[in-house]
Amino acid sequence: MRAVVLNAGTLTLRDRPVPAGPGECLVRVTAAGICGTDLELLRGYAGFSGVPGHEFVGVVERVDAADSAWMGRRVVGEITVGCGRCDGCRRAGRGHCDVRTVLGIRGRDGAFAEYLSLPAANLHAVPDAIDDRTAVFVEPAAAACRILEQVEVNRDTRAAVVGAGRLGLLVAQVLRHAGAHVTVVVRSARGLATANALQLETVPLDKASTSLTRQFDLAVDTTGNPAGFAVTTSLVRPRGTLVVKSTFHGETPVAFSPLVVDEITIVGSRCGPFGRAIDLLAAGAIAVMPLIAATYPLEQYAEAFDHAREGLKVMLTT
Amino acid sequence: MRAVVLNAGTLTLRDRPVPAGPGECLVRVTAAGICGTDLELLRGYAGFSGVPGHEFVGVVERVDAADSAWMGRRVVGEITVGCGRCDGCRRAGRGHCDVRTVLGIRGRDGAFAEYLSLPAANLHAVPDAIDDRTAVFVEPAAAACRILEQVEVNRDTRAAVVGAGRLGLLVAQVLRHAGAHVTVVVRSARGLATANALQLETVPLDKASTSLTRQFDLAVDTTGNPAGFAVTTSLVRPRGTLVVKSTFHGETPVAFSPLVVDEITIVGSRCGPFGRAIDLLAAGAIAVMPLIAATYPLEQYAEAFDHAREGLKVMLTT
Repeated sequence: MRAVVLNAGTLTLRDRPVPAGPGECLVRVTAAGICGTDLELLRGYAGFSGVPGHEFVGVVERVDAADSAWMGRRVVGEITVGCGRCDGCRRAGRGHCDVRTVLGIRGRDGAFAEYLSLPAANLHAVPDAIDDRTAVFVEPAAAACRILEQVEVNRDTRAAVVGAGRLGLLVAQVLRHAGAHVTVVVRSARGLATANALQLETVPLDKASTSLTRQFDLAVDTTGNPAGFAVTTSLVRPRGTLVVKSTFHGETPVAFSPLVVDEITIVGSRCGPFGRAIDLLAAGAIAVMPLIAATYPLEQYAEAFDHAREGLKVMLTT
Repeated sequence: MRAVVLNAGTLTLRDRPVPAGPGECLVRVTAAGICGTDLELLRGYAGFSGVPGHEFVGVVERVDAADSAWMGRRVVGEITVGCGRCDGCRRAGRGHCDVRTVLGIRGRDGAFAEYLSLPAANLHAVPDAIDDRTAVFVEPAAAACRILEQVEVNRDTRAAVVGAGRLGLLVAQVLRHAGAHVTVVVRSARGLATANALQLETVPLDKASTSLTRQFDLAVDTTGNPAGFAVTTSLVRPRGTLVVKSTFHGETPVAFSPLVVDEITIVGSRCGPFGRAIDLLAAGAIAVMPLIAATYPLEQYAEAFDHAREGLKVMLTT
């Protein structure tokens, strides 16, 4: 099969054997999305080599007898495969398994290929109300929904989302749907235009960091860079909460004393509930079409990755 | 009156007027403790100039008519004075007042002097069961108790306290009293000996950072330095909690991605409940005598500060 392979920071299109995980389902990938984490993988994040890609929709083409109900179904998939027996699984759930594999991120080939393999337990059927391009957003929308499991969000919550990219604008919509008063902190004209298209309230980054410091109960960093993180910290009120949503390579210098003095809580937030994300997308409570910049065939992976660096969602199709 | 004054990083003994805050109580200081924050103030933390010192016990010697009940009483005092009207006060309590003064830290002369001034609302009477040297520990013990207001601690909690100094050993005792299984991560022979005297379980720092990584539900950094913070982060299990208890000058480089991937919650923690600390100290649930390194007269402030750098509690008396 054709697959985009990452090795030592370089992507190439190669011919690879169709994956054949024992006891797993083979999924023919219809479309896959490029995420900020994929761009970080190229910079060395997580030390991954193999086929990247973890946001996908596809059709199940081969299963074990026990999983025959999945045959032929259109699916999305949770990306982490845990052992269910180790300390990490027992204490924090399979997502935090000590020996986990993660689709396209850790020890498991991912979705930028014609086929991928996942256990049936990871799969979720996609309802007819969700088309393929929308289904690619289930995984990042679930990650956005994860915040609601970690932090109380209600009609009294004043929330700032820093970053108007593909992740930030999902987070902003999820928080708005949960009742929060949401302000999106934007840097670029593109971010502003997209946020406007989603009827989200915006403020330019330079204005936020001067006139809105210490104003928000909840501030979410989706920028994936140290400068964005610093702005996000400045927006949180005393005893407020800062959610770090993006993973990025390297270290960030943090002045911790102001965070201690203000008793800020910093919450690391990763993968989330697929069921909730599917419900929100099926109901149209989250709009994703304005977040899609382009779709490329797998062969044009290089152009696709370059385009993804501009901040919106770029998809690869087989 | 005699007072130790900090100016541009240098301490000197000076003659200063007795403080006379309108509507406040005048307290003759009996004893005052040197805290890690005081050492950081000398390095430029918080940009403070004036009389440092915020852990004290004293006797009320002058009051307004409305506060006459306090006259002659032996007291300790909460260190923050808030306006009660600003955004910070309304949203996060007077401790987070936007225009607050803080005894010996921000806009208000402190306890390394013959007298200090505080509003009656900040004072707590010291019961007879607590002698003067023990009373100096009410403020830092309250700061340790603050953790119990922020994080659930019970018999199932495996807690690591990094740092076996005056603050770490208070935190460890408070967590142990709340039911947690506590391990103190020690670096020095002095820290080990003091922790042993308090019947606390210990582990050397180098062993903790190799064999106890990701083992603790709760890890508390009391070291006040970036290296200690890094060790503390390594000890927290996935979805565990890291409490940052110490304030220190400057920036700390933090690799945030592992904290996001492990969904660690980082909690900044500052001042705490005086009533609870007084109860614990009066009941003997926290032992403080092993934490006292020495007591010096005010004139020997230089020797006292040098001694305090070794990690245990050093007191100044007038």
